[in-house]
Amino acid sequence: DVSFDPKEHQHLRYNPLRDSWVLVSAHRMKRPWAGQVERPPEEHIPRYDPNNPLCPGNKRANGEGNPDYDSTFVFENDFPALQPDAPDPGSEQDPLFQSKAARGVCKVMCFHPWSDVTLPLMKKEEVVKVIDKWAELVEELGTIYPWVQIFENKGAMMGCSNPHPHCQVWASNFLPNEPALSDRCQRAYYQKHGEPMLLQYAKREAEKKERVVVESSDWLAVVPYWATWPYQTLLLPRRHVLRISDLTTEEREGLAAIMKRLLTKYDNLFEVSFPYSMGWHGAPTGPYLKEDNSHWQLHAHYYPPLLRSATVKKFMVGYEMLAQEQRDLTPEQAAEKLRNLPEEHYKTR
Amino acid sequence: DVSFDPKEHQHLRYNPLRDSWVLVSAHRMKRPWAGQVERPPEEHIPRYDPNNPLCPGNKRANGEGNPDYDSTFVFENDFPALQPDAPDPGSEQDPLFQSKAARGVCKVMCFHPWSDVTLPLMKKEEVVKVIDKWAELVEELGTIYPWVQIFENKGAMMGCSNPHPHCQVWASNFLPNEPALSDRCQRAYYQKHGEPMLLQYAKREAEKKERVVVESSDWLAVVPYWATWPYQTLLLPRRHVLRISDLTTEEREGLAAIMKRLLTKYDNLFEVSFPYSMGWHGAPTGPYLKEDNSHWQLHAHYYPPLLRSATVKKFMVGYEMLAQEQRDLTPEQAAEKLRNLPEEHYKTR
Ligand SMILES: O=P(O)(O)O[C@H]1O[C@H](CO)[C@@H](O)[C@H](O)[C@H]1O
Ligand SMILES: O=P(O)(O)O[C@H]1O[C@H](CO)[C@@H](O)[C@H](O)[C@H]1O
Repeated sequence: DVSFDPKEHQHLRYNPLRDSWVLVSAHRMKRPWAGQVERPPEEHIPRYDPNNPLCPGNKRANGEGNPDYDSTFVFENDFPALQPDAPDPGSEQDPLFQSKAARGVCKVMCFHPWSDVTLPLMKKEEVVKVIDKWAELVEELGTIYPWVQIFENKGAMMGCSNPHPHCQVWASNFLPNEPALSDRCQRAYYQKHGEPMLLQYAKREAEKKERVVVESSDWLAVVPYWATWPYQTLLLPRRHVLRISDLTTEEREGLAAIMKRLLTKYDNLFEVSFPYSMGWHGAPTGPYLKEDNSHWQLHAHYYPPLLRSATVKKFMVGYEMLAQEQRDLTPEQAAEKLRNLPEEHYKTR
Repeated sequence: DVSFDPKEHQHLRYNPLRDSWVLVSAHRMKRPWAGQVERPPEEHIPRYDPNNPLCPGNKRANGEGNPDYDSTFVFENDFPALQPDAPDPGSEQDPLFQSKAARGVCKVMCFHPWSDVTLPLMKKEEVVKVIDKWAELVEELGTIYPWVQIFENKGAMMGCSNPHPHCQVWASNFLPNEPALSDRCQRAYYQKHGEPMLLQYAKREAEKKERVVVESSDWLAVVPYWATWPYQTLLLPRRHVLRISDLTTEEREGLAAIMKRLLTKYDNLFEVSFPYSMGWHGAPTGPYLKEDNSHWQLHAHYYPPLLRSATVKKFMVGYEMLAQEQRDLTPEQAAEKLRNLPEEHYKTR
């Protein structure tokens, strides 16, 4: 009998945050790739572009002018998916044709006045300003909205249509599918085990070490045991923290430092500005502020698409869309690769 | 007070097959697109390519030679994600680090000996042969495996690495996430309403008409009320049918005809060979063959990525990955556009 080797033998792993499974078939990395090759991410972006609506001083689609900002800059999305005043579709009783009102706001937040920097290339103090602004927006929008989703689509490959460093913040009058699922899973775990799931998880991963990418006294970044994207990571505080707005000054500085380290490793992996979608999940807000949310632990998900090189991504298609997500290397292999990369950015070496 | 207009006012719609919601923000189509432009799908493919491992008579990666096939041709995937004999990872008791054995087989099925045809361009009798082979594989692999996933990744944009018309069939010793969820939802509906969900749904859509794309006496294709991809469709029989292998000869002929009509419309939409991932869902097999599966109704999902043109797709990224899927036109708008397209293929006009 052959003994089990996760690098050679396909198996399933359980994602306790989504109550679902991922198929790990690491031997698939051996197959040659003859499919689509992406355009490599643009490497030469001008610091200031008079036609870029996100640059300081420029005009946006709605005719408004940006201030001459020198740090972060937040404005309302000119084409928002969520608006504060959409009328109610009314109540259809038919279980097959159910709709509900959706209200909210969509904001865009520039990280820096320059178009040619990204978070790993910004100064630590500049990244702290980004974190402070995130916290402020969660606090502000969270007074009324139950969910405030901070997310960054980085790179054209991830649907980002503007190279200027920025993220988005969409607040909604409903708890979206993903956080609703995560809330259920964390609550059930807490009820059963008496401790927040992700607090226990971070402790175990810090002991096990094999999936740790970077760590500090306050923070931990791992390729989760149940990662679906090739180099997916989960970034969490070690202390029990419900929301980004609850982070102390030191924790925000620690977060800026660990984000710079993680994102530098990402860029160094294929020596390219690494595309990804990332976002923060914390305890819900608005009406949930009055409830007990002890089962929640603040965390960020990074979902980067690249698999083999700067130009070959993982396609989450047929089997993944219709049956189950499948990955082509083990989370331990991905973590080891990232862990062993230098912490100095390839552009500044 | 403004009255509700689904084309102007964002709202949520419920997907009863996945127990989740989609955000419909149709006014977003008005925003200009300055982001990634895809390479248009390759239009000139040689009928026979001596280097293509899927063509009749050619050698594959494992050294085996293909027969000189003149209809469909099935072989084992040379780099399978599922193999029949992988060892068991053993039972970890820790709820945060759970794994399970995964066993199965991965087959590839060529639709036709020629590389320069696709299903809509094949003769109806040739498409019937594809359907017969699908049914045969579900029957054969379904004797042991609980789930047999037939899926087609069409186009390089959807991760397909070979232009020869083909699909894949992955059978597994587990019920993957998506069918497991669909099974739960259909079962709950059946218990509550006493009729299969999708049978009721097809009847209602056939009456309402507004989301119907093509229909015949036996079949119906609609943009479902809860579609997430811009031109997503759901194809279903009108009769209660559990599995593709249960289709009668006439129903298979009807299916070939309606597939040709639907896929011709898809190609005509942007006058390009339309990329998509598609797959069949029917009642589970293997040990489930002995159980009551009356809650199930056979159906196919088509998930095409294009949104604005042959080269601009919908990106399911940041908000979609971290919060909830969002669409930029209503399902009714998509259905109307598809419905009004000619049923003669642009290449043969
Ligand atoms: O097996 P193929 O066609 O080479 O690969 C394609 O389909 C698979 C199943 O959906 C995916 O896992 C791969 O990412 C994709 O590139
Ligand atoms: O708002 P943006 O950056 O123009 O658009 C991008 O992010 C959105 C939120 O994830 C997606 O819905 C869009 O498909 C994507 O292109």
